Amino acid sequence: MHEHELWRELGQQLRADAVRASAKAGSGHPTSSMSAADLAAVLLAAHFRYDFDQPKSPANDRLIFSKGHASPLVYGLFRAAGVLSEEEFGTYRQFGSRLEGHPTPVLPWVDVATGSLGQGLPIGVGMALAGKRLDRLPFRTWVICGDSELAEGSMWEAAEHAAFYELDNLTAIVDVNRLGQRGETMHGWDLSSYSERFRAFGWHAIEIDGHDVAQIHAAYEEAERTSGKPTVVVAKTLKGKGYSKIEDHEGWHGKASSAEDAEEALAELGGIRNHVVAVPKPEPGEPHRFEPAGAEWPSYELGSEVATRKAYGDALAALGGERGDVVALDGEVSNSTYSEIFRDAHPERFFEMYIAEQQMIAAAVGMQVLGWKPFASTFAAFHSRAYDFVRMAAISRATLKLCGSHAGVSIGEDGPSQMALEDLAEFRAIHGSTVLYPCDGNQTAKLVRAMADVEGISYLRTTRGNTPVIYGPDEDFPIGGSKTVREGEDVAIVAAGITVHEALQAAETLADEGVSARVIDLYSVKPIDGDTLRTLRMPIVTVEDHWAEGGLGEAVLAALAGGGHMQHVTLLAVRELPRSGKPAELLAAAGIDAGNIVETARRAVRGASAVS
Amino acid sequence: MHEHELWRELGQQLRADAVRASAKAGSGHPTSSMSAADLAAVLLAAHFRYDFDQPKSPANDRLIFSKGHASPLVYGLFRAAGVLSEEEFGTYRQFGSRLEGHPTPVLPWVDVATGSLGQGLPIGVGMALAGKRLDRLPFRTWVICGDSELAEGSMWEAAEHAAFYELDNLTAIVDVNRLGQRGETMHGWDLSSYSERFRAFGWHAIEIDGHDVAQIHAAYEEAERTSGKPTVVVAKTLKGKGYSKIEDHEGWHGKASSAEDAEEALAELGGIRNHVVAVPKPEPGEPHRFEPAGAEWPSYELGSEVATRKAYGDALAALGGERGDVVALDGEVSNSTYSEIFRDAHPERFFEMYIAEQQMIAAAVGMQVLGWKPFASTFAAFHSRAYDFVRMAAISRATLKLCGSHAGVSIGEDGPSQMALEDLAEFRAIHGSTVLYPCDGNQTAKLVRAMADVEGISYLRTTRGNTPVIYGPDEDFPIGGSKTVREGEDVAIVAAGITVHEALQAAETLADEGVSARVIDLYSVKPIDGDTLRTLRMPIVTVEDHWAEGGLGEAVLAALAGGGHMQHVTLLAVRELPRSGKPAELLAAAGIDAGNIVETARRAVRGASAVS
Repeated sequence: MHEHELWRELGQQLRADAVRASAKAGSGHPTSSMSAADLAAVLLAAHFRYDFDQPKSPANDRLIFSKGHASPLVYGLFRAAGVLSEEEFGTYRQFGSRLEGHPTPVLPWVDVATGSLGQGLPIGVGMALAGKRLDRLPFRTWVICGDSELAEGSMWEAAEHAAFYELDNLTAIVDVNRLGQRGETMHGWDLSSYSERFRAFGWHAIEIDGHDVAQIHAAYEEAERTSGKPTVVVAKTLKGKGYSKIEDHEGWHGKASSAEDAEEALAELGGIRNHVVAVPKPEPGEPHRFEPAGAEWPSYELGSEVATRKAYGDALAALGGERGDVVALDGEVSNSTYSEIFRDAHPERFFEMYIAEQQMIAAAVGMQVLGWKPFASTFAAFHSRAYDFVRMAAISRATLKLCGSHAGVSIGEDGPSQMALEDLAEFRAIHGSTVLYPCDGNQTAKLVRAMADVEGISYLRTTRGNTPVIYGPDEDFPIGGSKTVREGEDVAIVAAGITVHEALQAAETLADEGVSARVIDLYSVKPIDGDTLRTLRMPIVTVEDHWAEGGLGEAVLAALAGGGHMQHVTLLAVRELPRSGKPAELLAAAGIDAGNIVETARRAVRGASAVS
Repeated sequence: MHEHELWRELGQQLRADAVRASAKAGSGHPTSSMSAADLAAVLLAAHFRYDFDQPKSPANDRLIFSKGHASPLVYGLFRAAGVLSEEEFGTYRQFGSRLEGHPTPVLPWVDVATGSLGQGLPIGVGMALAGKRLDRLPFRTWVICGDSELAEGSMWEAAEHAAFYELDNLTAIVDVNRLGQRGETMHGWDLSSYSERFRAFGWHAIEIDGHDVAQIHAAYEEAERTSGKPTVVVAKTLKGKGYSKIEDHEGWHGKASSAEDAEEALAELGGIRNHVVAVPKPEPGEPHRFEPAGAEWPSYELGSEVATRKAYGDALAALGGERGDVVALDGEVSNSTYSEIFRDAHPERFFEMYIAEQQMIAAAVGMQVLGWKPFASTFAAFHSRAYDFVRMAAISRATLKLCGSHAGVSIGEDGPSQMALEDLAEFRAIHGSTVLYPCDGNQTAKLVRAMADVEGISYLRTTRGNTPVIYGPDEDFPIGGSKTVREGEDVAIVAAGITVHEALQAAETLADEGVSARVIDLYSVKPIDGDTLRTLRMPIVTVEDHWAEGGLGEAVLAALAGGGHMQHVTLLAVRELPRSGKPAELLAAAGIDAGNIVETARRAVRGASAVS
């Protein structure tokens, strides 16, 4: 069979598979799969270099379906590659099947979950960056995008970074099928609207007929030949291509065919096929590894003062000296987060992502697919910009280390836009996450070191201002633990980060009044040290530089709810919208400074003795 | 004085003011203010039409500092307009001052808070859209942007929408001062890199020297003359312009001058000036108002089935018939959220925002500045894409009504990327928010109606599948209330949305076993009905289709923590990453279906009797 004919056959096979898989499941997106079938067929048969037996091999090309709803096409490709049986193919969207509604890494050939549009291309940028600057291998990253998702700003963050970093190892394929979920896209089949935008951002752009296999092949070859810039293939296609009843018709997004229609469609498509493609393997290649040069671990003198954000930078640089797999990214605030210390120590492993937090997180997701350990930092407040990316990263089973600096009202004069009073809630509600909030330099350093080995999404919250060093450099801080920094029997003050110091000060004042206050440093907000909390037999006051919702206080309540004995708990947290001011003024105004803790603890003790 | 000379003088005044205000405060961003001073001076003196005595007048031009850190320039402008006294100007960044570190609507002439970069232009799109399509007044929206923030994808969402909606009443002014916070931007002074991108997106672009007042004036005139498309003025400027020690030097971002340097700077700038500009007022104009045509309020028969998302659409359309100020936006999923029912009933008040959730929220923020009541909907999962915008909207004291559909594992086959298991946590942690989660059609309709009058950010969570109608159409559902849908004395099951139906089924089974279970429908997750919860004298089981963190269960715990009497509470929530499957299979696998509730309630009752 001539290769063009084979490719066309394969396209038909993929379309037929999309129709029958979704018809059997009773849901899914066959029409979005049918439009991209020829683009995918030519890629698999003639351009994609991948060892399906070693999906994690760093020599492999990578493929991301940014339009994750085209999952029948993804699974059809795996069937065509000979790695998915007909039997398993029939389990699409069933409970317990690996073939989920949108692809996830439950399948070994899927690197990242997609399904929230506009994320695949930014993640591809991360993979291509890793290929060029970290692994230094000639693999290519292919990303199949929808036209609708080009409305997401994150796609243009990706366009910007791909061009800036000259990622000629990245190819975006845009399936311009004209129709979104509820009607036509902004630009319909105006291919130039897309190619002109990409060119303005510094890409090489090629417009083709996405159902002409010769044009597709030529475009991919041109992409492979293009150096110094990424290439986008803008392909005109028909949604539902191949089945006349739905082809290029509105109202068929995300709709499976009825059994009857599916039969008709299969007849039009020429029936079920079982072609298996011999996908070429990549040239073997060993990824570049950075030789760790060794480093002195930072340590701060007891009683001195240092900002935990500064300790983050010091520790991250040391970690980079210990381990060659640690890399860092920052959102143009490295002189505030102090990731600049890492940058200066390990310039080859630092990535400036400018003010593009979504792209920063996505790049980290892409890099960790290839085995790197990315630490990504910005102001804690601005992690909220990439929340959907973090949410999806958890579904991707990604391992990311995130740091948010300048958290809480204690930043002072810059005001509420920079404060991050929701980040603990935000990150606690990420599946499988670890949330850490150190109060001093030595604790920060230990936690940064521990983060390197944590699976999943871990988040470290740092403070802008200097805080006293209260722990020696040899103290241990296991994740999931806490520290009782002061013993006491009348009331327990549970704090973390900046409020630990307020709590200690409050305990001093209370002691003068004859109230014995225990102070617990709950540096590991998630997982939480429930054992310690549940053994408390005294009223509890929690205090946090965060909104009352979803933060440390509620985490404590949830931990206690699991136990048999309920203590009376009072939550001190920020409840009114803060303004600008000095840190001490704002802590007081928010009701979370030492003075407020003293008052609340006093009341709690009085209440407890009234009851007993 | 020749007008050019006056404008130059005014630019120097603004620079001098920026230097002295931040020097006095000891913090702030003078250099970022100095670069944009001439751009702002010419705008205020010759183009901006605004009645400072009636800042909310719909006839006024609007001005947004997308680069909110240039707050000394903002306040300097107000001083130059004669509305801010020298005395108040001296309170910059002090505790209690209206002159916060980044501008907020605490000042009557500031419409929206900025300080998270990349938000001002998208909000400006909302204002310009309102001007053109809702108010139908000839006011102009001016947005002063930084060059660094063009790295944010949200700016390109704005570029896309402004061109698509032909917003020739919108002018973006980009202050290309070349230097970001920690060094040079991606494009430095390559003005064409910006103008070419904007042109590719369909804008008219003009490149100028941003310190040449004649060029600035001419560019603004050209913008005012340009019809059918928005205009961007790309202006080359010098960061720290006017003070030789810092002008165009790295390392001076966000740094106030020392007292000594400030004196030197003022000398170079020619000293303090006190020009007051007579800002021209706009032509008086009455905004267009939509005549409400009246509508029949939806009502669903007891015992029938309807999806709450469908009821949202029905109710929103009815609300639009009752009130002319209600408008709706959707992120290209109106046939899923059912906002399409509103669109079909009130096409002039519906805005398709395509798959650009950040732009959708920003547009809503812009519209509410002008008094409209925007309802914005997408899948609940995808609201996470715009979390930073919602966070900032709360700081803007904005009133938005948001709806997230398809929440929870109960969506079924589409899988975790579409599920939204963090949205309750996300929205609870927004300052002053209202979080509602109805379980049936009539309740949904009532809550939609109530949302119209709620101040601040309100969020309604809807369910994909049909649920039984359990309330009559005349039942009332006050915000902050709850409904005891079944009486019982042994255990209380607290649920909301989809889990109310599981709880009712569980209570039936428990009754057969002789366990009397109370079922509470906690449709108002925030504010929460603490009074009802605190009077419970029985063990409590909470059950939610959401992660265990930050959702309904923790909200209940926090409400109880305020009271004197502690009940034993067990939280049922999603704890493992869900996969695809049928809704009932996934509810069971997550441990939140009737069967799991029965088991947990049984254990809770046994535990309680063991204690008593």
